[in-house]
Amino acid sequence: MNTECPLPVAEDETVRLGHGSGGELTQRLLRDYIYPHFDNPWIAQGHDSATLPLTNEQLVFSTDSFVITPLFFPGGDIGELAIYGTVNDLAMSGARPRYLSCSLILEEGLSMQTLARVMSSMGKAAAASGVQLVTGDTKVVEKGKGDGLYINTAGIGSVEHGLSIGAHSILPGDLILISGDIGRHGMAVMAKRESLEFEGPLLSDCAPLHEPILALLDAEISVHCLRDLTRGGLATALVELAETGSQQFYVREDDIAICEPVLGACEMLGLDPLYVANEGRFVAFVPAQQAERALAVLAQFSVTANSRVIGAVADGRTPQVILQNSLGCERLLDRLAGEQLPRIC
Amino acid sequence: MNTECPLPVAEDETVRLGHGSGGELTQRLLRDYIYPHFDNPWIAQGHDSATLPLTNEQLVFSTDSFVITPLFFPGGDIGELAIYGTVNDLAMSGARPRYLSCSLILEEGLSMQTLARVMSSMGKAAAASGVQLVTGDTKVVEKGKGDGLYINTAGIGSVEHGLSIGAHSILPGDLILISGDIGRHGMAVMAKRESLEFEGPLLSDCAPLHEPILALLDAEISVHCLRDLTRGGLATALVELAETGSQQFYVREDDIAICEPVLGACEMLGLDPLYVANEGRFVAFVPAQQAERALAVLAQFSVTANSRVIGAVADGRTPQVILQNSLGCERLLDRLAGEQLPRIC
Repeated sequence: MNTECPLPVAEDETVRLGHGSGGELTQRLLRDYIYPHFDNPWIAQGHDSATLPLTNEQLVFSTDSFVITPLFFPGGDIGELAIYGTVNDLAMSGARPRYLSCSLILEEGLSMQTLARVMSSMGKAAAASGVQLVTGDTKVVEKGKGDGLYINTAGIGSVEHGLSIGAHSILPGDLILISGDIGRHGMAVMAKRESLEFEGPLLSDCAPLHEPILALLDAEISVHCLRDLTRGGLATALVELAETGSQQFYVREDDIAICEPVLGACEMLGLDPLYVANEGRFVAFVPAQQAERALAVLAQFSVTANSRVIGAVADGRTPQVILQNSLGCERLLDRLAGEQLPRIC
Repeated sequence: MNTECPLPVAEDETVRLGHGSGGELTQRLLRDYIYPHFDNPWIAQGHDSATLPLTNEQLVFSTDSFVITPLFFPGGDIGELAIYGTVNDLAMSGARPRYLSCSLILEEGLSMQTLARVMSSMGKAAAASGVQLVTGDTKVVEKGKGDGLYINTAGIGSVEHGLSIGAHSILPGDLILISGDIGRHGMAVMAKRESLEFEGPLLSDCAPLHEPILALLDAEISVHCLRDLTRGGLATALVELAETGSQQFYVREDDIAICEPVLGACEMLGLDPLYVANEGRFVAFVPAQQAERALAVLAQFSVTANSRVIGAVADGRTPQVILQNSLGCERLLDRLAGEQLPRIC
C-alpha cells in the first residue's frame, strides 16, 4: 500500500462536480493530481487519444473496471489493482503489456488526499509493470451516485510468440500448474471490511504476473492456456476453461496451497477458498514433459516461487472439473450461481 | 433512440449483485444480454482480452466513461453515446476506428429491460460505425452506489495517413471550419431532464464522425488539427487548442450556427450555447487555400452537410480566442471554471 502522497494536498479538499466539466477545474485536476504520476510523451500531449507505435502484427486488447471496497486494503489499493488487473489480463494471452488507458468516475466529495494516494499508487504500479499510461478520461457524479471512485483501465499488449494460448489449445495429458497459494486477496479485503484480526499478517496477493509468463515463453515452454484466478477464484476459472475447451480436468485438493490466515478467515465467514478471488495467481496448462522445466522457470520469480502441479487434463469426454481429496473421494466443481464476495475487485 | 428490445425480457427482471460475481449469473448476463449484440470472432472467444490483427505501424488509443443522465434522451441514449464518443475521439486523430472494449458498471436493481435496450443500441451503433466490440467487463455495485449504469469504452484505431494532426500543427493563416450548428446535444438532454417543451423537435446531434474525417484525408486535405466539441462545447475546445498550440484565433460569432430551439432553451436556462456540449460536431484547422475543397468534401455527408468557416488563426503572439460580433466588438473566450451541465456525457 502506498501511503505517501507526493503533492501537498489540503486535508479538506474534495472533488466537486465542476471537476468533471471539461473546463478549468478539470484541467487543474489533471495537472495537479493525474499527470505528475504518469510521465510519458503521450499523456503530456493532452489529446483525447494517444497515437502509438507498435510494429507487431498482433496486439492484445483488454479492459476492466475496478469497484473494490474499501479503496485501501492490506497489501494494496484500488490503484494498484487497476494497473495489475489489466496487465495480468494481457499477460494471460502471453502478451507484453505496453499501453494503458485510465478512466476515473469520481464521486462528488471524494477527498483529494484519497485521490492523490490512489494516483500515486497507480503511477508506481505502472512503472513496476513497464507499461505507459497514455490516455484517459475523468467524470464526476453527484454524491450518492458512486462510491468514492471507480477506475477503468484498458490495455494494449504486443504478441511476440507464435503460440495460440487459450482454452481451445488445452489437450488431454496437459498438466495444470498453479503459481502459488490461493485466497489471499479476497480474504485480505474481507478481513478489512469486517475488521477481523488474525494471527500473522494477511495481505492481498495483488501483483503483476507478466514477467514470469514472458519468461515461460522465452524458455520456449509450449504454453497451451493461461488464466488468472480473479473473481470466482480457482474453481470458477477451471470450470470456465473446462467448458470453453471441452476438456475434463482432475485436480488434487491436497496440492492446492492455502495459508493458515486464509483458511481461518474462510472458516469464520463460511466461505470456500476455492471460490475466493486472487489478484496475483494464475494457472498454466503445459505439456506434461515440459512441466518440470516450466516450474524451474517460475521458481526464479518471487511472485511465482511456490508454483506447483495441481492436476491434469484427462481423456474423459464430459467437460468438467473433478476435485480429488486425500481419501480418494471425488466431487465435481461447479460455478457459483451468485456471488460470494461482492466488489472484491 | 432504439426503443425495440430484441430479447424477451421479463418486465420486472433487475440486476442483482450476483450478476457481478464472475460466476453463473455473470455468464447468463453476458450470454443473454451482451454477446447477442456484438457478433464477432473475438468476443465469442470469451477471453478476458482479444488478440487482434493490425498491420499498421501506428495505432491510436482512446477511452471515455459515460455517466449521462437520463440514460435515454431525445436523439439518442447512453449506449450510442458510448460508441460514438470513442469512435469520434479516434477519428479526431485521423484514425480509422477499428476495435472497441466495453466495460459496464451496473447498479443493483437496474431493470434488465433497460440494459437490453442500451445493449441493442450499442450493437447498432457499433455496426453503423464499422467497429468491432471485442472485449469487455461487467461489474455490479450495490443500490445507491451508482445510477443505473455507467459505460466505459476504449478504442483502437489505425492510422493510414502521414499527417501529424494536433494542436501543435496549427499554423497562422489556417482557417477554422465547424461541421454544423452547436448546442443540440446539451440542450436536448437538459430539456429532457427539466421536462421543457419547445416548438419543433430538439434532438441530440449524437453521431459518428469518422466518415467525413476519413474523406477529408482521402481527398488529401492537409488537416492540421481536429477536435470534437463535447463537454465544454465550442468555446472550451477552441481555448484548449489555442493554449496547447500557442496560437491566436479569431472567430466570428455570426458564423456560428445555433438553431432556434437551442437558443430558446439556453435563454430559458441562462446558459451560453458556446459552452454547451455537442456529440456530433467538430472543428477542423486547414490551410486557407484548401478550405473550399474541404467544405466540398464535408458537404457530401449529412452529418457535416452544414459545415462552414467560422474563423482563422492570426499572427498574434498571445494564445487566445477572440470572438467578434457583427458590430465588430471583440471579447475573449475563456474556460469555464466549473460546470454548466453536469453529467451531459
